[in-house]
Amino acid sequence: MITRIHHIALVTPSLDEATGFWAEALGLTVSQQHREEEQQVDVAFLPVGQSNIELISPFVEDNGVAKYLQKRGPGIHHLCLEVDNIEEALQRLRAHNVPLIDEQPRLNSEGRKMAFIHPKGTGGVLVELYESE
Amino acid sequence: MITRIHHIALVTPSLDEATGFWAEALGLTVSQQHREEEQQVDVAFLPVGQSNIELISPFVEDNGVAKYLQKRGPGIHHLCLEVDNIEEALQRLRAHNVPLIDEQPRLNSEGRKMAFIHPKGTGGVLVELYESE
Repeated sequence: MITRIHHIALVTPSLDEATGFWAEALGLTVSQQHREEEQQVDVAFLPVGQSNIELISPFVEDNGVAKYLQKRGPGIHHLCLEVDNIEEALQRLRAHNVPLIDEQPRLNSEGRKMAFIHPKGTGGVLVELYESE
Repeated sequence: MITRIHHIALVTPSLDEATGFWAEALGLTVSQQHREEEQQVDVAFLPVGQSNIELISPFVEDNGVAKYLQKRGPGIHHLCLEVDNIEEALQRLRAHNVPLIDEQPRLNSEGRKMAFIHPKGTGGVLVELYESE
């Protein structure tokens, strides 16, 4: 049902500063970098095996990610798991009384089905589910 | 150089509670569970693709992990990347002035070479390196 860790998302005040560590010092490669206008964040992906490090940096000061950064400082923001059938996964979670942020799957900017699980139900981790392509 | 995310370690006050979400509700399988006497923690591994979710629960109240849990609450503790040559990785990090917790590799309880990178150098994430077997 769960096929892989798709990405671990890290929030940073500066993509340049973050890639200074993850790419230049550690040796990973930035496979794509783009601005997500709707979410008001700049995003970079660095593949690691079958997963990715996703770097997220807000370009405004008053969205959810910017507030998270101000409150908690830079670090891990969420963990994204890929599932083969997201409706089945959500149904199973509901059957176990796990609180969901998204009761139904939404489409992300790439048209992929995704949903967030509430950290109250996961032991403090914001978990995103992606459906495999 | 970096081959995969080996594990994401989550700290929890109760392995039973954490496996209630990660195994029962989400559907992952516990591949191994054991007590690490030296580190004073109980540990469970749940494979996801080529990576693992590692659940860590302290069985005393005054070690580093217990204090982390008291201070920050349950959630992600560290991220472990597997490298093919840990000495080379540490040398490269030193050349980029990345602060290290372990200047030289140590052996973990399974005899695997490992080292921690200081969160000050990674953008707030505690990163562990494992050398591939």
